[in-house]
Amino acid sequence: MDYPELGILFDHDRLERIGFPEAVFCQGKPISILEKLIQDYGSEVNRSLLFTRLEPEIWVKLNPEAQRKLDYHPISRTAFHNPLPKRDSKANIAIISAGSADAFVTWEVARTLEYLGLAHTVFEDSGVAGLWRLTSRLNEVNSHKILIVIAGLDAALASVLAGLTPRPIFAVPTSVGYGQAQNGLTALNSMLISCAPGLSVFNIDNGYGAACAAARVVNLLI
Amino acid sequence: MDYPELGILFDHDRLERIGFPEAVFCQGKPISILEKLIQDYGSEVNRSLLFTRLEPEIWVKLNPEAQRKLDYHPISRTAFHNPLPKRDSKANIAIISAGSADAFVTWEVARTLEYLGLAHTVFEDSGVAGLWRLTSRLNEVNSHKILIVIAGLDAALASVLAGLTPRPIFAVPTSVGYGQAQNGLTALNSMLISCAPGLSVFNIDNGYGAACAAARVVNLLI
Amino acid sequence: MDYPELGILFDHDRLERIGFPEAVFCQGKPISILEKLIQDYGSEVNRSLLFTRLEPEIWVKLNPEAQRKLDYHPISRTAFHNPLPKRDSKANIAIISAGSADAFVTWEVARTLEYLGLAHTVFEDSGVAGLWRLTSRLNEVNSHKILIVIAGLDAALASVLAGLTPRPIFAVPTSVGYGQAQNGLTALNSMLISCAPGLSVFNIDNGYGAACAAARVVNLLI
Amino acid sequence: MDYPELGILFDHDRLERIGFPEAVFCQGKPISILEKLIQDYGSEVNRSLLFTRLEPEIWVKLNPEAQRKLDYHPISRTAFHNPLPKRDSKANIAIISAGSADAFVTWEVARTLEYLGLAHTVFEDSGVAGLWRLTSRLNEVNSHKILIVIAGLDAALASVLAGLTPRPIFAVPTSVGYGQAQNGLTALNSMLISCAPGLSVFNIDNGYGAACAAARVVNLLI
Amino acid sequence: MDYPELGILFDHDRLERIGFPEAVFCQGKPISILEKLIQDYGSEVNRSLLFTRLEPEIWVKLNPEAQRKLDYHPISRTAFHNPLPKRDSKANIAIISAGSADAFVTWEVARTLEYLGLAHTVFEDSGVAGLWRLTSRLNEVNSHKILIVIAGLDAALASVLAGLTPRPIFAVPTSVGYGQAQNGLTALNSMLISCAPGLSVFNIDNGYGAACAAARVVNLLI
Amino acid sequence: MDYPELGILFDHDRLERIGFPEAVFCQGKPISILEKLIQDYGSEVNRSLLFTRLEPEIWVKLNPEAQRKLDYHPISRTAFHNPLPKRDSKANIAIISAGSADAFVTWEVARTLEYLGLAHTVFEDSGVAGLWRLTSRLNEVNSHKILIVIAGLDAALASVLAGLTPRPIFAVPTSVGYGQAQNGLTALNSMLISCAPGLSVFNIDNGYGAACAAARVVNLLI
Amino acid sequence: MDYPELGILFDHDRLERIGFPEAVFCQGKPISILEKLIQDYGSEVNRSLLFTRLEPEIWVKLNPEAQRKLDYHPISRTAFHNPLPKRDSKANIAIISAGSADAFVTWEVARTLEYLGLAHTVFEDSGVAGLWRLTSRLNEVNSHKILIVIAGLDAALASVLAGLTPRPIFAVPTSVGYGQAQNGLTALNSMLISCAPGLSVFNIDNGYGAACAAARVVNLLI
Amino acid sequence: MDYPELGILFDHDRLERIGFPEAVFCQGKPISILEKLIQDYGSEVNRSLLFTRLEPEIWVKLNPEAQRKLDYHPISRTAFHNPLPKRDSKANIAIISAGSADAFVTWEVARTLEYLGLAHTVFEDSGVAGLWRLTSRLNEVNSHKILIVIAGLDAALASVLAGLTPRPIFAVPTSVGYGQAQNGLTALNSMLISCAPGLSVFNIDNGYGAACAAARVVNLLI
Repeated sequence: MDYPELGILFDHDRLERIGFPEAVFCQGKPISILEKLIQDYGSEVNRSLLFTRLEPEIWVKLNPEAQRKLDYHPISRTAFHNPLPKRDSKANIAIISAGSADAFVTWEVARTLEYLGLAHTVFEDSGVAGLWRLTSRLNEVNSHKILIVIAGLDAALASVLAGLTPRPIFAVPTSVGYGQAQNGLTALNSMLISCAPGLSVFNIDNGYGAACAAARVVNLLI
Repeated sequence: MDYPELGILFDHDRLERIGFPEAVFCQGKPISILEKLIQDYGSEVNRSLLFTRLEPEIWVKLNPEAQRKLDYHPISRTAFHNPLPKRDSKANIAIISAGSADAFVTWEVARTLEYLGLAHTVFEDSGVAGLWRLTSRLNEVNSHKILIVIAGLDAALASVLAGLTPRPIFAVPTSVGYGQAQNGLTALNSMLISCAPGLSVFNIDNGYGAACAAARVVNLLI
Repeated sequence: MDYPELGILFDHDRLERIGFPEAVFCQGKPISILEKLIQDYGSEVNRSLLFTRLEPEIWVKLNPEAQRKLDYHPISRTAFHNPLPKRDSKANIAIISAGSADAFVTWEVARTLEYLGLAHTVFEDSGVAGLWRLTSRLNEVNSHKILIVIAGLDAALASVLAGLTPRPIFAVPTSVGYGQAQNGLTALNSMLISCAPGLSVFNIDNGYGAACAAARVVNLLI
Repeated sequence: MDYPELGILFDHDRLERIGFPEAVFCQGKPISILEKLIQDYGSEVNRSLLFTRLEPEIWVKLNPEAQRKLDYHPISRTAFHNPLPKRDSKANIAIISAGSADAFVTWEVARTLEYLGLAHTVFEDSGVAGLWRLTSRLNEVNSHKILIVIAGLDAALASVLAGLTPRPIFAVPTSVGYGQAQNGLTALNSMLISCAPGLSVFNIDNGYGAACAAARVVNLLI
Repeated sequence: MDYPELGILFDHDRLERIGFPEAVFCQGKPISILEKLIQDYGSEVNRSLLFTRLEPEIWVKLNPEAQRKLDYHPISRTAFHNPLPKRDSKANIAIISAGSADAFVTWEVARTLEYLGLAHTVFEDSGVAGLWRLTSRLNEVNSHKILIVIAGLDAALASVLAGLTPRPIFAVPTSVGYGQAQNGLTALNSMLISCAPGLSVFNIDNGYGAACAAARVVNLLI
Repeated sequence: MDYPELGILFDHDRLERIGFPEAVFCQGKPISILEKLIQDYGSEVNRSLLFTRLEPEIWVKLNPEAQRKLDYHPISRTAFHNPLPKRDSKANIAIISAGSADAFVTWEVARTLEYLGLAHTVFEDSGVAGLWRLTSRLNEVNSHKILIVIAGLDAALASVLAGLTPRPIFAVPTSVGYGQAQNGLTALNSMLISCAPGLSVFNIDNGYGAACAAARVVNLLI
Repeated sequence: MDYPELGILFDHDRLERIGFPEAVFCQGKPISILEKLIQDYGSEVNRSLLFTRLEPEIWVKLNPEAQRKLDYHPISRTAFHNPLPKRDSKANIAIISAGSADAFVTWEVARTLEYLGLAHTVFEDSGVAGLWRLTSRLNEVNSHKILIVIAGLDAALASVLAGLTPRPIFAVPTSVGYGQAQNGLTALNSMLISCAPGLSVFNIDNGYGAACAAARVVNLLI
Repeated sequence: MDYPELGILFDHDRLERIGFPEAVFCQGKPISILEKLIQDYGSEVNRSLLFTRLEPEIWVKLNPEAQRKLDYHPISRTAFHNPLPKRDSKANIAIISAGSADAFVTWEVARTLEYLGLAHTVFEDSGVAGLWRLTSRLNEVNSHKILIVIAGLDAALASVLAGLTPRPIFAVPTSVGYGQAQNGLTALNSMLISCAPGLSVFNIDNGYGAACAAARVVNLLI
């Protein structure tokens, strides 16, 4: 079984055009392609590289040389090589999650921000079933410039928080739960029709997208 | 155009069997049927009668004699004749709604409770976009035995409240909003997968059902 | 592969606030987290702990020490440590299920009630395809204060039973069946639009939620 | 505004081929077409003609000559000319409906059977919220050869009845109700996944189809 | 891990009440329950027993004694013990399927009919993409009293056949295909809204149900 | 109430770029805009103009001058000014529809082809419930170069025809029917998963799109 | 018919808390409530007031006094009183729409920005079916700090633009189109899964929400 | 376990009737059937044979003799024996895909065209997130007679390309992505409601169908 050469045509000038480089979405890509990308790009000077949705069971199948070139983080399923230089920490970002079951998305946001060189703080387990967990940390949260909120199920955290902050707030629904959680669709819809105004929303589990949106705002600030 | 005689067979012993009498769901029923029911039942001694979903545009078409026999309330779209005797006010019920757009359901609950003789208090406009509207009235809400919460859109009020009360709590989603509000489906699903435990849920806009569920609990208390 | 420390922030005062303690929903949580929770909480005096959705294939992977601290029940996929003291048995609860295929939910209800110290009786295989199975046991069912009904497929049992009882009745749809059973969505919708009034509904397979709702009512009674 | 001649090509030999003649589904057809069909077919000797879904507001717009040729029945929204000769009454059919809100379908079945010359009895308001309404009439229902059951909402009547009869049973869901009734979709799905075996199902509100299916069985019997 | 005794309550008098005995739907039932049923029922004189949805991978795990008592057929995933006596072969049934991918349903119908003692003929691979495959066999198909049609994808076979036969026709959609086949939902909907009248429809892949419906008609004929 | 000037920017070079000019989709556009477009474009020499979805109730509200400039056809809801010159009639197109209820789409195709100068023939009422209506005209249909098939409900006509022709075949589902017709979604899905290969599909009721697709093929032929 | 006093509890300190004042969503609110709000708030000094979804047919029913207090704009269905003071025009916002059918959303954005005192430019009719309409104006678009893109149907404009700009970009799907446009759901989903990274999304037709999100960013800049 | 003989009835004259031979859709077919087909058809002189959806894990289970008779290509999951003779290369076809994740569909198209003897060129990784990848190759793409476009996610490539080409254009949505990609449904719907006219659409991942549609057009050209 020899695979034909896949026709890959990377979007090389994306950093110049929109402010951050192309990332590799690994889901569904054969291992040979991933290894080839790591080999080619990992040897270029100053080339940054981010892999998302790189599952642990795929990671362990990569050859040792490829593994050595990357910084891998299993919960977030991300790996990167040569992250971007750190930006001014005054444009900092707060990541607030409803529960520990959302960690795979929470940390995809955090890792992408780390790769993009953006300062950030993580506030996990802030779900409104125990409202004190949010209200007791609200001042600290609001001391950040941009907020990213991560929640599944009813996503009530997103609405409550959006009603308590003047900051740009980007919301990512997660696919946790069962039955009418509908793999995150209910959380997505709840965020889209939030009773609080000006809440921006992303695809289910798309922590990478929210981090990029925050980067677009940071680029205005610094 | 002469309509054939419709074969109506009322469930006369429902009060004895399950604790409250049959109600008439008016949507889709021809006016001649409604008038006949009012005439027949309204003249019986001690016969109680509740009409739900009786829209104002139908109400105005009823003949004056039928109108005179009923106590009509347009926002809730309910009418009744000879309400049940008042029960012990210690088994009181709080109705908490997210906004004034939910009023058609909020007042269907209130009117059904009035018809069933059950004590209740209404707390409108308590949505969590302005969280202080709920927290400032929480003690008063929790002084009631049973809570009925009414919310549309993201229904975040239901989750927040369920996390702040030990009371039996019955939640009714409403069909307010547009787009991904999906005529109340998102509110329904958010309530079903609430991060707070023990929240009971009803069909979209079904204020009558929640009032009946509360009556089933009151029947245990007094 | 070393996992980062997950930021867990338990809702410690939930028992005081809403009448029953926080439970751990295990689905999707890594084993190391579960073991840490068991170790920390299982050694505290008087600390009660309930795990739901703890699948047999996860259970067998827990270390022996963790297993020894818990009472595990595979069909219901629940485990607990130090259940709450038994409450007055007059506030008893009947659990009525349509078929043996619903057992994983039926017993999640029963086990949660056992953990909460609430008296209960289980009536399995009462589906209406053979109506005599329900009617012959109806008096015994109605001798309980609160009813929890478990049914999948068309969920007709819930409607028939709600039309035959004055008790508070909490209904849990199950994900049994194939095709238009839609993993329990049809049962859920049938319960929500039941022709019988005052039926309270929960998420698909959410036996834990119905048990909590029953506990909220029991807390009013005793 | 002159309409072009529509290209109509009737299926003239349907009676010989499948046992009953083509019917005219009126919804969406312009009035001029309906009038032309009535004029052409109503003047042929021995030509039978059935119109379904002929709404009262369309009926009143037909010219008087067309109206005179047809026997119209507004609740069922059917009209016919020259019904088929009566068949042997031993192959009789019972029509059982859950409530009077289902009447528009119940009577579409009855009228189609009348047009096809088939003996039938109607049992309205037999919904299981008051189970005695069905059980007290069960023997009379089972004395018929074929059963057609009409129900909306949770459609529990169909399952209960199918578990109590050995007869061929054809089930029609109706679009009554609101919210998760989903315009009849929940009733349809409940019937399709009934816990009772051998229940045949039709499209939402399709009383005409169920009557035709019964006719196919009657054609085997006589 | 000791499983609690599941509360099984069989519907023993179903044969007398509705004309055929209860069957065991195996999906989701633990193996210990299946073995117990086979042991208990397989040793009773004259007790007939049918298992549906008994997957090959479950079958091979049953103990040899249980296997010996049953006649197993892997494609249809059915097993039975002591089938009912053969009925009059004049009330014969034709099973027409669209393609060999539908075989798992086609043979569930055939095996259920065999178990119930009903004469039948199978016509596979009759899909309308090659219309001659149906038309060349139409006379033979129509020589049967009752038709059961099995089709997935667009289910066009059901409509074409229903327009060419006067027989009672029962249609079963199958879950074959991908994308907008929607696991059989499109086939189901196409059958429900067939342009040909009097087509009775069943749940996706429910061959057992269609065979039972045919049995209800046969019971009228002989 | 004075409307602001809407910012319209027509795609003037579309004819050169893709082979046919931009059309005006009228649904939702205010009448003042339609009148302005007719005035501006209708006075240019050699400017062709097509309006689709121009409902009769909107048409009658246009000022007489605008009406005089257009050729309006109410069933198809189209209007045009200065149609394109006639093309070679050897590249002819057959339009085959299932029933007269599909006429609003059938004639949208025919009118768009007329506007584009393309030769075509219409075959209405060819639905497979009476299969002879298609087979008796098949040779005539196949004598055309390109086929456009229009069908609602189960759309079985599209599959049967695609299995009987070597021609490029473009299929348009229509929104006729009720219940599980789902406003044309079932017809659309049936066409997408047709058992016959190489069937191209368009949006529900999109006769205009199918005519444009046929024009793209004609442009290759002549 | 006297309406009961609705319990309105405005979120008065929203401006201080989140940076812009509460708006009134008019859909479904009775006219008497709207008039009362205008009367109460319109007479307070320095009180700003914005009404959204105020349809022309409701507007004309308001009493003349109420009308005089408001600046009404029918296409956007907005009205306001006492807009906020103008902010620094360097933090300007570009609004790019796909077509004139999207105008009701495009202008809801523009009017909300006008009310909030934020500088903005509108670029209508930029849909990618004629790609030159976007590319020829790209430099001018990118000279703004924040972009809001409005598109229905396939929403391809949002993806193309997000791939060509480094700016924060907020996308609003619109409900234009028919069939599989699904009242805007397809546009919404296309935006959520855009192939271009960092695109923030809002509910269907929710121009107000996108304007508020832009305001949250502007508040960081000035 | 002996499988019964499956009743296979191939559509042998399909090549003569519609222009290309029947293909074998392998998904769900038992291996014994596949081997039998290869043995029977692979030994006939001049018999061409194409297998689609033949997954690598099934391929490796075929016996070596069967494997030797076929040309297998794992990414496209296709195998063929004795492809059709090459046709005139002037009727060439361009295949344009959005990304390398779409390769399994892109190459199903290419392999089917190779089997049918049709000239084609593949242009991978042309997604509009980097618009230059399409525009820089547009002239080369347009030098082909027919275009097949393959895209998942938002499918924006299909709309942009259709607005830039006069060619017949066939669009295949793919199931790549997660969340609101909905396994390709969003891409499908975006293509169906494309803002560019005359785009023909196929089922999700149905590369085979688009290749057959192109073959229908090629048959007109040569």
